Amino acid sequence: MVDTVSASTIASEATTARGARASRAPRPATVSATPTIDVEWLGQYLLGTWAEARLESRRVTARPEMQRIEGLSLTEHRQRVFDQLHLLVEEGAVNKAFPKRLGGQDDHGGNIAGFEELVTADPSLQIKSGVQWGLFGAAVLHLGTAYHHDTFLPGIMSLEVPGAFAMTETGHGSDVASIGTTATYDIEAGEFVLNTPFRGAWKDYLGNAAVHGTAAVVFAQLVTRGVNHGVHAFYVPLRDVDGSFLEGIGGEDDGLKGGLNGIDNGRLHFSDVRVPRLNLLNRYGDVSEEGDYTSSIASPGRRFFTMLGTLVQGRVSLDGASTNAAKVALAIAITYGSQRRQFTAGSDTNEEVLLDYQKHQSRLIPRLATTYAASFAHEVLLTKFDAVFSGASDTDVDRQDLETLAAALKPLSTWHALDTLQEAREACGGAGFLAENRFTSLRADLDVYATFEGDNHVLLQLVAKRLLTDYSKKFAKADVGVLARYAVEQAADRTVNGTGLRRLAQNVTDHGSKARSVGQLRSPKVQRALLVDRVETMVAEVATRLRPANKASKKKAADLFNQNQNAMIEAARAHGELLQWEAFTDALATIDDPGTKTVLTWLRDLFGLGLIEKHAAWYLIHGRLSPQRAQAVSDYIVRLTARLRPHALDLVDAFGYGPEHLRAPIASGAEAERQNEARDYYRALRESGTAPTDEKAVKGSRG
Amino acid sequence: MVDTVSASTIASEATTARGARASRAPRPATVSATPTIDVEWLGQYLLGTWAEARLESRRVTARPEMQRIEGLSLTEHRQRVFDQLHLLVEEGAVNKAFPKRLGGQDDHGGNIAGFEELVTADPSLQIKSGVQWGLFGAAVLHLGTAYHHDTFLPGIMSLEVPGAFAMTETGHGSDVASIGTTATYDIEAGEFVLNTPFRGAWKDYLGNAAVHGTAAVVFAQLVTRGVNHGVHAFYVPLRDVDGSFLEGIGGEDDGLKGGLNGIDNGRLHFSDVRVPRLNLLNRYGDVSEEGDYTSSIASPGRRFFTMLGTLVQGRVSLDGASTNAAKVALAIAITYGSQRRQFTAGSDTNEEVLLDYQKHQSRLIPRLATTYAASFAHEVLLTKFDAVFSGASDTDVDRQDLETLAAALKPLSTWHALDTLQEAREACGGAGFLAENRFTSLRADLDVYATFEGDNHVLLQLVAKRLLTDYSKKFAKADVGVLARYAVEQAADRTVNGTGLRRLAQNVTDHGSKARSVGQLRSPKVQRALLVDRVETMVAEVATRLRPANKASKKKAADLFNQNQNAMIEAARAHGELLQWEAFTDALATIDDPGTKTVLTWLRDLFGLGLIEKHAAWYLIHGRLSPQRAQAVSDYIVRLTARLRPHALDLVDAFGYGPEHLRAPIASGAEAERQNEARDYYRALRESGTAPTDEKAVKGSRG
Repeated sequence: MVDTVSASTIASEATTARGARASRAPRPATVSATPTIDVEWLGQYLLGTWAEARLESRRVTARPEMQRIEGLSLTEHRQRVFDQLHLLVEEGAVNKAFPKRLGGQDDHGGNIAGFEELVTADPSLQIKSGVQWGLFGAAVLHLGTAYHHDTFLPGIMSLEVPGAFAMTETGHGSDVASIGTTATYDIEAGEFVLNTPFRGAWKDYLGNAAVHGTAAVVFAQLVTRGVNHGVHAFYVPLRDVDGSFLEGIGGEDDGLKGGLNGIDNGRLHFSDVRVPRLNLLNRYGDVSEEGDYTSSIASPGRRFFTMLGTLVQGRVSLDGASTNAAKVALAIAITYGSQRRQFTAGSDTNEEVLLDYQKHQSRLIPRLATTYAASFAHEVLLTKFDAVFSGASDTDVDRQDLETLAAALKPLSTWHALDTLQEAREACGGAGFLAENRFTSLRADLDVYATFEGDNHVLLQLVAKRLLTDYSKKFAKADVGVLARYAVEQAADRTVNGTGLRRLAQNVTDHGSKARSVGQLRSPKVQRALLVDRVETMVAEVATRLRPANKASKKKAADLFNQNQNAMIEAARAHGELLQWEAFTDALATIDDPGTKTVLTWLRDLFGLGLIEKHAAWYLIHGRLSPQRAQAVSDYIVRLTARLRPHALDLVDAFGYGPEHLRAPIASGAEAERQNEARDYYRALRESGTAPTDEKAVKGSRG
Repeated sequence: MVDTVSASTIASEATTARGARASRAPRPATVSATPTIDVEWLGQYLLGTWAEARLESRRVTARPEMQRIEGLSLTEHRQRVFDQLHLLVEEGAVNKAFPKRLGGQDDHGGNIAGFEELVTADPSLQIKSGVQWGLFGAAVLHLGTAYHHDTFLPGIMSLEVPGAFAMTETGHGSDVASIGTTATYDIEAGEFVLNTPFRGAWKDYLGNAAVHGTAAVVFAQLVTRGVNHGVHAFYVPLRDVDGSFLEGIGGEDDGLKGGLNGIDNGRLHFSDVRVPRLNLLNRYGDVSEEGDYTSSIASPGRRFFTMLGTLVQGRVSLDGASTNAAKVALAIAITYGSQRRQFTAGSDTNEEVLLDYQKHQSRLIPRLATTYAASFAHEVLLTKFDAVFSGASDTDVDRQDLETLAAALKPLSTWHALDTLQEAREACGGAGFLAENRFTSLRADLDVYATFEGDNHVLLQLVAKRLLTDYSKKFAKADVGVLARYAVEQAADRTVNGTGLRRLAQNVTDHGSKARSVGQLRSPKVQRALLVDRVETMVAEVATRLRPANKASKKKAADLFNQNQNAMIEAARAHGELLQWEAFTDALATIDDPGTKTVLTWLRDLFGLGLIEKHAAWYLIHGRLSPQRAQAVSDYIVRLTARLRPHALDLVDAFGYGPEHLRAPIASGAEAERQNEARDYYRALRESGTAPTDEKAVKGSRG
C-alpha cells in the first residue's frame, strides 16, 4: 500500500496545490500497477465551465485582507466584511451578473461560480455580498424594469447604496405567500403606503438591515382598489446619510448569531411609509396611476412563483459554496490524517498513520465520494442556471426544471457540508476543535445554509410535489383502474417496469456467489436501475395513497398529505441523490486518462453503492435486493474504501485549494514535522544506548 | 387530537416548569380517554437518587451571575467563568466529592449530579470546574495519598490554587500510554526531573494552563534507576504569584476554540523542572529515597488502567451533562413547535402549528424518546459510579463494569446531544440560529464532548474489547470445533440460542398479519431479544474473524484487527443502545401511575423500535426480521410518534427546567403572543368588512 501511495503522489507532485503543501514527507518513486490520477488535469476539470471565474475569485480570496480573522467582536467583524465588499467592488468582482450597458458582463454562470468561491475566505463575505448583489441587486434586476435598472443598479453595483432584501418576516419564513406586510396604493398621492400590521409581520433576519442598509427591496401584499394582488417587491429607502431610519421605519438588530456574524442581520417594520408608484418593481405586475392592476401572468399563483423563481440563484450558489466548504474540510482532515500517528499496532516503534485505520477511512473517504458527486451535480445545476438566465434556454419548463434541480440539490449539499465539517472536526480530535483549524468556524457559519434561502425540508417538499405532478401527468389519461393496478404492481412484484431488477435478485438467489453479485453491482446500469426504481416506487406509493385527496374535503386532504409528508420528503431526497449519481456518472464519460477514470469510477461506485447501503432496508423490504447481495454491497464498500485510501490525497489536492485557502496549521505539514522529530528522538535514544528499559522487558528478563 | 392535548395540559398545569411558561395558550378542560402524565411525579422521578443535589445546583444555575453572556470576548469570558468558580466555592458547591476530614462530604454521586447541572448555566463553567475539582483535584485525591490530600487539597478546594490536568500531549490524545514527557528520579537530589523531549510531547488543550493555573498534575513516564515504569502523575507548581511561569516551564495559549471559550486552554512544556520526590502521587506506585520503585499492582498494564480508571468521573459527568443539554434543546424546540404556525393546510384562515406536521414530529419526538433512554441509563451509570467510589461495591469487576458502562454510554449521549441540538436548531429555522435561543452556543460548546475525556470511537473500541474478552471467556474451555460451529450457526441459522427469534420470523411468514406482528414487537421481551441478539451475533462474528490473530505475527494480527475495526465499533454501539433500552425498561417497572406508565411505555417502544428500524438492514440480512415485519416496524413508529405528540409538552416539562434555565426567547411564550396578535388582527379585519378582496376570489366571481 505504501508503494501505491508513492506512485500517485509522485505523479502529481508538480501541481500547485500539492507543491504548496511543502512538508509532506517525501516518498520514493516506485513503479506500481495501481492506477494514478492525473491531478493537474482533474483539478482543471473540477473547475468546470467557469474555471476562469473561479480562479479569479480564488486569487481574490488569497488576499489576507479578504480573509476571516477569528475572534473579532461583532462590530469589528461586521465592519471588516463591509470593507471587504468595497474591495470586491474595486476588484471588479461584482459586475458579472449585471447588464453590459451598466458596466456589467451578463455572465450569470461565471458570477455564481466566482461568488461561491468566497466561502473559503469567510462565509460572511460570501453571504453579505450575496445579500447586496445576489438578492437586493438581483431583485431590482429581475423583478424591476429599465427605469429601476437605470435608477437603482449603479448605486447597488458600486455599493454606494448597501441594501437589504426584506422578504422574510418573523412570523413567516418559508411561507412567503402569507407575509403580513402590505403596500396599499393611494390613488390621490400616486404612492404606495407600506405598513406592518402586527409584530409577526416585522421583516426579520435581513442582512444589511441592522446597520449598513440605506435601502431595501421590500416584499409586501400589493393592494389597490380594494383587491389584494399578492406579494410584490418595492424599492424602499431606509436610512438617511447619517444612518438614521427615515420616517415611519423602525427596526432592531438581530444581535449575535450562531455564525455569519460578519453580517448585520436585523429587523424592519413600516408605519405608513410612502414610496412613489414607480418604486414597484413592475416586471410581472404593475399598477397604473389610476390604480388599475395589470400583469403579464394571469394566474396569481403562477405569477408569485415566477417572481420568486427569479431568485433561484441564492439556492444555486449555496449548493456550490457548501460543496466548496466540504472540499476544504476534507483537504484539511485527509492531509492531517495522512501525517498524524496514533497507537502502535503492527510494530513496536512505529505508530500508525490515522488514515490507515479502517474506521478513519470509513469516516472520510465515503464523504469524499459524496463531495465529488455534489461537485459534479453542482456543475450541472450551474450550467442549467446559466442557460436559463442568459436566455439560451429560458422556457417555462426550463425554469421549472431549474427550480426543481436547485430545490433537490441545495438540501443535500448543505447538509452534507455540515456533516462533513463535523466528521472532519472529530477526526482531527482536539486539534480539530481549535478555531485556527477552520472546521468549527466554517461549520458554525454554514449551519444556517440548511434553513435559509428555503428551508431544506420545505424545498424537498417542493421537489416531491413536482415528482407527483410528473407522475400524475404520466397517468393523466389512464383510468383509475390502470393507475391503481400500476401502483399495486409496483409495490408487489415489479412486473410492469421492474423486470430487469427482478431478474437481478433472482440471479443472486440462484447462484449465491458473492463475487458475481458484486460484479453486477459495479455496473452503472444496475446502480442506476436500483436508484431510479426507488424514486419511482416511492412516488407511485405516495401518489396512490394521496389519490383519495382529490375527492376529500380540504381538511381531510390536508390530513392525508400530512400523513405522507415523511414519505414525500424521502422520495425527494432519493431523487436528489439520483441526480447527484447521474451527474457523477456523466462526468466519468468525459474522462480520457485511464488512471484518473479508474479511480473516479471507484469513487462513483463508492457513492452509488453507499446510497444503496444507506437505503438497504428499503431495498430488502421491497424485494429489490437479496440479503446476500445487501451484505455483498457493504463488504464491497469496505474494500473500495481501502482501495481508494492511497488516492485520497490526490483526490483532495485536485480541489485546487492551496495553503492560502485552507489556512489550517494542522494541514500545513507541522504535524509531519512533529512526528518526524519524535521518531528521530526515539531512534537516537535507542541508538545511544541510554534509553531507559521498559519495566515489562525487565520483568520478562527476570522471568 | 386537540382534546387529548388539552387533557394532558390541564392535568399538569400546576407544575413549576409549566407554570413558568406563562403564555401557553389556554385550552379548555375536556374529558378524554387518553392517558395523562403525572408531570410533577415524573419530574421528581427524573431527578433520580441525587435529586436534592440536582435541585441545589439548579438553584445555583438560576443565578444570573452564574449564566453565560453571549458575545463576550475571550478574555472577558475566561474571567467571568473564573469568577463563577469562586462563587461556586462560596456556595459550598464544590466540596461534595472530597473527604469529610477536609471539610468535604464524601458524596460522590451527589457531586457529579450537581456538577452536570452546571451545563445549563454555561458549559464552560461546567468544564472549568470539572478541570479544577474533577480532574486536577480528583487526581490528587485518587492518585495521591494522605500527604498529598493534606498538603494540596485544601488549596484546590478553595480555588486558592487553580490547577491544570496535564495529561494530553499534542502528539498523543487518547493514547495516554505513549506520552513523551519524562520524570526521571535523581537519587542525589531526591527529586524528579521533568522533561519534554520534543514538540509533540508538549502538554496540550489543558484547561487552566493558558492563564489561571498555578499548579498542575503532570502525567509523565516515570524513570528511575534506568527503568521506565510507565505513566505516573506528579504535582508540579507552574506559576509564581504574579502569574509568570516558574523556571524551566513554558507554554502557549491554545487561543480561540470552537466553543468552551470560558476556559483558558493552553500548552505546557518542561525543561529540567525539578519537584520533590514526595510530589509523585504515589497511591499506585512509589519511589523510595534510594530510587527503588514499588507498586501494589505488579502488572504495568493493569497499573496504568487502574490509575486512569480513577478518573472515570469525567466520562460519567459528560454523559449526564450531554443528556441535560439535549433536554434543554427539546424543551425549547417543542415549546416553540407547539406555538409557531406556518402554512395553512386544512383551513383558509388558520395556519398549522409546526408540531402538528408529521415531519416535525418525526424530527423531535423520537429524539425525546432517546433523551429519556439516555437519562435513565445515566442514572444507572451514576449509581454504579457512586457504589464504586463510596466503596460500597468496589471490586476489580465493579471498576471494570463501571468503566465499560461509561465508555459505552458517553459516546452515545454526547453524539445524541449534538444531533438533538442541531435538529432542534433547524426545526426552529432562523430563530434557532440566533444566539439568544441557545442551540448554536450549546452545540458549539458540546462539540468537543465527543472527543475529549476519551475520543468516542476509542471508547467504543474499549467496549468492544471487553465484549470480546467476555465472549472468549465464555468459550475458554470449548475446543475450536465447538467455537467455530457456534459462530457458523450464529450467522446461518440461530439454532443455538436464537430459537425464540427464529420462531418470531416464522410467525410473520406464516400469518403475514401486520396487526399481529406489531403486537409482538410491542412486547419488551421481543424488543430485548432482537437487541441482545444483534450484539451477541456481531460479537461472535468478529470473534470468529479475529481468531487467526492468536497465531499470527504482530503485524498480521494488527491488520486483522484493523479489518474488523468498523464491526467492533458497531458492536459496541449496539451494546450501548441495549444498555439504554434496558435502563428505560427497568425504569418503567417502578412507575405506578397508569397514565404516566402508558405514555412512557409508548416512548420506550418508540426508542426500542427506533433502534430496530435504524438497524433494519442488519435484521433483514441476518434473517431476524421478515420484510413485512420490518415494514410494520416503520409504520408503527409513525403511529407511535403521532400518538405521543399530545404528550410532548408534558414530557419536556417533566425535565423541570424553568425559564431561568432555558432562557430562550422563542420558548418564552412570545411566539404564542405574536401568533395570537396576528390572528386577532385578521379576524378583526374580516369582521370590519374593510379587508381587501383576494385577487383569486375576484376572478372567481367574474368567472
